[in-house]
This record gives sequence, structure tokens and C-alpha cells, in this order.
Amino acid sequence: MVDTVDNQPPHNVVIVGGGFGGLYAAKALSRANVNVTLIDKRNFHLFQPLLYQVATGTISPADISSPLRAVLNKNKNTKVVLGEVNNIDPQAQKVIMGDETIPYDSLILATGAKHSYFGKDEWEKHAPGLKTVEDAIEMRRRIFSAFEAAERETDPEKRRAWMTFVVVGGGPTGVELAGAIAEIAYHTMKDDFRNIDTNEAQILLLEGLDRVLPPFAPELSQEAATSLERLGVTVQTSTLVTNIENNIVTIKQGDTVKEIPAHTVLWAAGVKASPLGKMLADATNAECDRAGRVVVEPDLSVKGYPNIFVVGDLANFSHQNGKPLPGVAPVAMQEGEYVASLIQARLNCKTLPQFKYKDRGSLAVIGQNRAVVDLGFIKLTGFLAWFAWLFIHIYFLIEFDNKLIVMVQWAWNYFTRNRGARLITGYEATIAKDADGFYPPAVNLPTVNV
Amino acid sequence: MVDTVDNQPPHNVVIVGGGFGGLYAAKALSRANVNVTLIDKRNFHLFQPLLYQVATGTISPADISSPLRAVLNKNKNTKVVLGEVNNIDPQAQKVIMGDETIPYDSLILATGAKHSYFGKDEWEKHAPGLKTVEDAIEMRRRIFSAFEAAERETDPEKRRAWMTFVVVGGGPTGVELAGAIAEIAYHTMKDDFRNIDTNEAQILLLEGLDRVLPPFAPELSQEAATSLERLGVTVQTSTLVTNIENNIVTIKQGDTVKEIPAHTVLWAAGVKASPLGKMLADATNAECDRAGRVVVEPDLSVKGYPNIFVVGDLANFSHQNGKPLPGVAPVAMQEGEYVASLIQARLNCKTLPQFKYKDRGSLAVIGQNRAVVDLGFIKLTGFLAWFAWLFIHIYFLIEFDNKLIVMVQWAWNYFTRNRGARLITGYEATIAKDADGFYPPAVNLPTVNV
Repeated sequence: MVDTVDNQPPHNVVIVGGGFGGLYAAKALSRANVNVTLIDKRNFHLFQPLLYQVATGTISPADISSPLRAVLNKNKNTKVVLGEVNNIDPQAQKVIMGDETIPYDSLILATGAKHSYFGKDEWEKHAPGLKTVEDAIEMRRRIFSAFEAAERETDPEKRRAWMTFVVVGGGPTGVELAGAIAEIAYHTMKDDFRNIDTNEAQILLLEGLDRVLPPFAPELSQEAATSLERLGVTVQTSTLVTNIENNIVTIKQGDTVKEIPAHTVLWAAGVKASPLGKMLADATNAECDRAGRVVVEPDLSVKGYPNIFVVGDLANFSHQNGKPLPGVAPVAMQEGEYVASLIQARLNCKTLPQFKYKDRGSLAVIGQNRAVVDLGFIKLTGFLAWFAWLFIHIYFLIEFDNKLIVMVQWAWNYFTRNRGARLITGYEATIAKDADGFYPPAVNLPTVNV
Repeated sequence: MVDTVDNQPPHNVVIVGGGFGGLYAAKALSRANVNVTLIDKRNFHLFQPLLYQVATGTISPADISSPLRAVLNKNKNTKVVLGEVNNIDPQAQKVIMGDETIPYDSLILATGAKHSYFGKDEWEKHAPGLKTVEDAIEMRRRIFSAFEAAERETDPEKRRAWMTFVVVGGGPTGVELAGAIAEIAYHTMKDDFRNIDTNEAQILLLEGLDRVLPPFAPELSQEAATSLERLGVTVQTSTLVTNIENNIVTIKQGDTVKEIPAHTVLWAAGVKASPLGKMLADATNAECDRAGRVVVEPDLSVKGYPNIFVVGDLANFSHQNGKPLPGVAPVAMQEGEYVASLIQARLNCKTLPQFKYKDRGSLAVIGQNRAVVDLGFIKLTGFLAWFAWLFIHIYFLIEFDNKLIVMVQWAWNYFTRNRGARLITGYEATIAKDADGFYPPAVNLPTVNV
């Protein structure tokens, strides 16, 4: 609780979402003369850029999760509330959580995005995406279960389908997943089976555009594709997925239609904004783009509501170069910090110039020792890029929580090529099996044929 | 595959269960002239003695799990099969897994035990036990969710029920859980909340007998109780639980009946053997005791079936001092190794004296810095005991898998009193809430009122 000098009640800032945008806003407000309430439906901040490492059995969820209360417990002006916002009342200046309402003077919405299937929601059960810890555990279960099923399968054709891994989407997440699965199959588990040869696993990376990592410079896309091929990944660009069902992925390449039998299909192709964007748009007449993002003003506020801000993946900020800023952590962090500064400036009856994103570059990791880094003024590939990637990720990861452990884990894995976190878990994994006598897929995906 | 010198087909050893008993048997057979098939329904060995640390947010499941294939991948005579044994045919010498049958010459059953509610199975949904990774994640979710619910609850009585933690059973697991929850409430999370004071949390440890840690010497039980009280745990011995429902635990102390309102009830009171014991008994006329354990011969074989062995928590071995050996890891490890030696001796037309358990002592940890160790010839308490406990657990933990990481994690936690793994996870945690507006309990426990 904060007392203002002139005995006015303190300014209430409510932040919805504890991802990069929300958390950086809260941290930037830690010494401000305001009361901060951070609402999240999860009790931890998730370092999403490394989630693919959970999905592929290198590290544990807790290694990249920081309890929000622990991160913010020194911020005496900040209160963390675990709960889900159901609606926003911009006239009464309140957010609604079930029966409870929380009043705000300034509101920051930062609830991010989840994966999207471009209207083909029925694909989700066949091809899970990667946004939450549960998603990652589910991917991990499917990847490692597929090898187990192949080991037990005697029919060569069915076995091939278990040994085929299709990653849809050639952005950073898709590239990282495909590279990691190649390492699992061709290195980590090469001595682990007696009936199958994991070298026979096929890993396909499908991308609709004509190159992987489309946001990067073309020469880095080329380098990434070459590195992936060297790891054993089959990269197929200009390839559209037209259907996913019954363990068959149907693709279209030009006029050619092909069917790929595969039990494990991983989705890394698209995102849509959290439903809170639509709620806000309904309540304020703000505009949403096709991905559900709220179109924001140059100061990240909502048109007509200067005290409501949207940051991170939920925002469509197009005032810099005409197209929306990308949905990456640095954008969210800078936006969160900008809004925190703007709120403080306004309390001092000042204002700030419009938000401007400082692009410090893009990184994607391809495998152990290999990454591509595009810093604009310099482009790195290979080991040096991997090392830069590692350094930057560890730097940001340990910022809140001193996750020393991840560094040790990585060093260990690096030298041993070990993957100790390849557990097949989930309540369902312990309970029942499907008609093939194998563990069924996701807890919340009851109808899948895996 | 192993060729025998005289071109006989190699002897097939089938081991069911990859816990301490099964895994130590498999490892002891690594250079034997036999084919080993290890069947488990999970793809990892779980170091159960540290599972309470997962349940209380100190370490991650992968930190105490070793992929069975990785542990055994150097054993060229060993094959790991992921699957569940549904039946045993001792006449045909086969185990049955769905449509598949696996022939054996020697069979080792080591499927262990799970928690038991003494016929009150309806208590399970209110008071989860701690045997699997999923159990631990569920306990963790309940413990940390309870503090979150208390923070949001305004009614003081309801809040008290959220802040009351009841651990049923004063054996090592109960003592370890109660001590860890006290540290969470009174140390780890003391600065984390704004509405509640975590010092007001009540932690009750209930034990039916007249002292905690009944297998230990009475003076160590006394020391453990004193240490627990000092940590803030209320220890209630000679206390029987007569009912658990609607967030109320009913207890009986002599003639007095009391009701304790508590949302979080953790079960550490009893175990029953895996259902495979009953299957074997039905197939072989072997005797099962009340806990479902198979009564074994002095050489751990089943009466009338000298090539079927039962080891670990599934076995009732009473030939040493008249009562069954306890269900602890060292018993299972020694039994597994004994059976491996016996099988090899028999292949060389030799035999072995009957199994004899070498009791090297008992340990239980109470909190950071505090444990009790009973080595028979010496009894330790306090920091020295804690250090012995730590050393012994790390020694066995790193044996298979070089889990260096756990050591670093512990060192880190020790100095920071941090608990980074306190995630509230599970698909349900992300989906719906109960009537109280709070996250519902377990994924597979649909009817609980938490």
C-alpha cells in the first residue's frame, strides 16, 4: 500500500497476464507511487522461448517457470491475484473475475496469444501446439511414446508411421522442434531400442512460404535449412497442409497432393490472440485484427480509452513500419516497460513520445552447436550463433529467478548429449490404453487416433 | 542376444516392474548369459524416496526419474518393453500383455505397491497419496492452490480451512511431507502474500500409533516429534481418522471425536500391493497377505514355482525374523540382486543359501538441516543426520543417471530456501473452476469438493 503525499488515494494499476509484457510492466512500476495488481490464471511466469526444450525432454517445466509471487515478493506495492478475468467494464473502470470485481485507474492487458489452426480447430487434437507447460508435456509424451509404439509394432508400414514426425510451420519454434527431434532420434536414443533403428526415423519440417525462418534474412534461412538437413531433417518449403486426420497429413506442393502417414504431428504454424482481446473490443469498440489482436494507438492505449493499454502478443501495434510488430518476447518486454513509464509520467502531469520498438535482432536455434542470429548489422551462424543464443537466453532466464540450474543442466547435456527429462507422464498415461494397446493421447483430447 | 556355449537357446528372464527391485535385478544380470526383458508401464525408473520433494515444489519429476532405456542401454542382453502385464500363465511360462505374450524361463515380479485407504477408497479423492509422479504433481497443485484460495477468501473461517493442512500417517513420508509444508508456509512463502499471513497456516500430522516413525527407536521418534513441533507442525499421535469428506477430517482420540475443517488432506498412511500379486496368486495358488503381498519362499520364489520370483513391496518375506520385511528401497534392491544371483547360480547348476536382508539402517528427513538416522549401532539426529541422509540419497540417486543437477539444486535451495518448482499445473488447472471460483482438484477426481 502506498500513501500519496497529498493524501489522494493511490493510483491503481491492474495488469492482466504475467507473461513478458505484464511482468516487465509490473517490475518497472515497483518503485512507482501506485498500487499494482497483477492477475494471472497461472501461478508462474513461463519463459516460453525455451518451451520447446521441455517438449523435447531436455529440461523440466520448473526450470523455465518462475513463481509470480516469488518474482514480485519484494515489490511491496504489488499484489498477485491468481484468477481469470471474464470481462472488462471500461465505464465503471473495473475488471470482472467471477463474482469479484477489481477497480483500476490504469489497465494493462497482456494475456498474449495461443496457437491457431486457421479455422481448422479439429486439427488441434491431432497436432498439438506449444504455448503452455501442459502443451509441452503433451508433445513430450507423444514424441517419446511414438518411439515406444514403433518398438512394439511389427508391421513395417505401421512402424514407419510411428517413426515419422511432422512439424508444421518453419518459424523459430518449428525449426527448434524439428532440430531437437532429430537429435533425439539420431543421437540421444540411438542405443536405446532393440527392435527399431532410430536412424530410420523421418523428421519433416513443412513450411508454407518458400523458405524457413521467413522473418530472417534469406541467407540465414538458407543456412538454417542446410543445418537442418545435415541434422537429418527433411525440409519441405512451399508446402501447404490441407488436412490432418487418422494419422495422415495431407500436403499440397504446387499442384501435387501427397499423403504422409504420421502419428506425431506438431503444430508450430500460427497464433491467435487471447479471447480477452475480443472482450475488450466488444466493450470499447476497439478494432481487432484477423488474428484477434487489439489495434492500439501510438502510445499502446485503446482508442477512446487512454487509461487502457494492450501490450505484447495481444496488441497490434502498426505505427512503426506499417505492419504489426512481431509476437516475440522483446516486443512485449519493451511495450510493458513503456506503458509503466507512461503511467508514471502522466501521474507527474507529463507525457512521453509514442512507443518505438528497438529491434535488437532475431535468434533461432537449430540444434546443439548450431543457431542463426540476425542482429541487423551482423549475421551469425553455426557455433558462434549458438553460443550467442545460449548467452542471451540464460541472461534473460536468470534475470528473475537465478535459474543457475538451467545453465548447469545445459552444460551437462551439452557434454553428454543426455536428455534426462524424457518422461511420459500425465494421468492418462497411467490409466488406459487405446485400441492399439497403446497409451492414449492428451488428457483433454478424448477422440484422437494416435 | 546371447549365444550359449553349447548352443542351447539362451535363458529368458522376464522382469515385470522397473522400480528398485526390478532394476537392480536387471543390472545384476547385465553380464549374465541370459536374455533379459524388463517390462514397465512407465518409461522411467522413479526414485520414490524423494517424491515428497516434488510434491512440495523443491525439485522436478525429471530430477528423480531415469529413463529405463537410458539406464539399461549399455546392457546388450536387455530389452525394455513399455507395457502393462495383464496376466501370467505359469503353466505355459508366459506373461500376457494384451494380445502379446512374452515367454520366460525365469520370471521376476516387482510391481510394488500403491497407497491404500484400508477399505475406504472413497477417501482417495479427498486425500491423495504419494506413489507416482502424477500423485506428486497433484499434491503440489493442492498445497500451493490452497494458499492461493486462502489469499482470495474473505471469510475467516473458510480461510482457516484453506490454511489447514492435514497429513495422515506418521511414517517417513508423512513426517517428510509435514516438515516440508511447514517450511513452505513459515519460510519459503512468508513474503509472498498480501491478504494472508502464512504464519497462520496449521499443519497437522496424524498418527494412529503412540509415536511418529514407529519403525525407528523410540528416542528417535521423540526427537522427530520435537523437531517437527519446532518447525511448527502439530503432531497428534494415538489419533485415528474415522472420516474424510466435504473438507472435514473426523478424528478419534481415545473417546473424543473431533472434526477438523481442512481443504488439503494428504495421505501417507498405508499401502497395498499391486494387483499383479492377486493375479499371480490366482494362477499359482500362492498365498497373499492382507496387504495383497505374495508370501514367498526363503529364496523369494513362489511356492511350487521355483522359477517365479517376487521381490520388493510386492513380496511378503517373513523368513528372517517372523514378520515381513518393510517396504523400503534397500529391501527391494537386495532382493532383486539376490534373485539375479540365484538365477545365474542355477544356470551353473549351483544353488545359494536363502535370502537374508542386511539392514543398514533407516533414515527420515524432517526439514532443512534436520533428520533422524538409525543405523542400529549408532543413532544420529539433527544436522549430522540430515547430512548423512543427503549423502546417502545423492549416492543412490546418481548411481544410474549422474543426476548431478539434483545436487546443485539442493545446494542452491539450501542457501536460498527457494522452491522454484512450485508450479500449479495439469490440464484441469487451465480449464475450469469449481463453484467456489477456484481451480478444481485432480484431473481424474471429478467429484471432489475442494
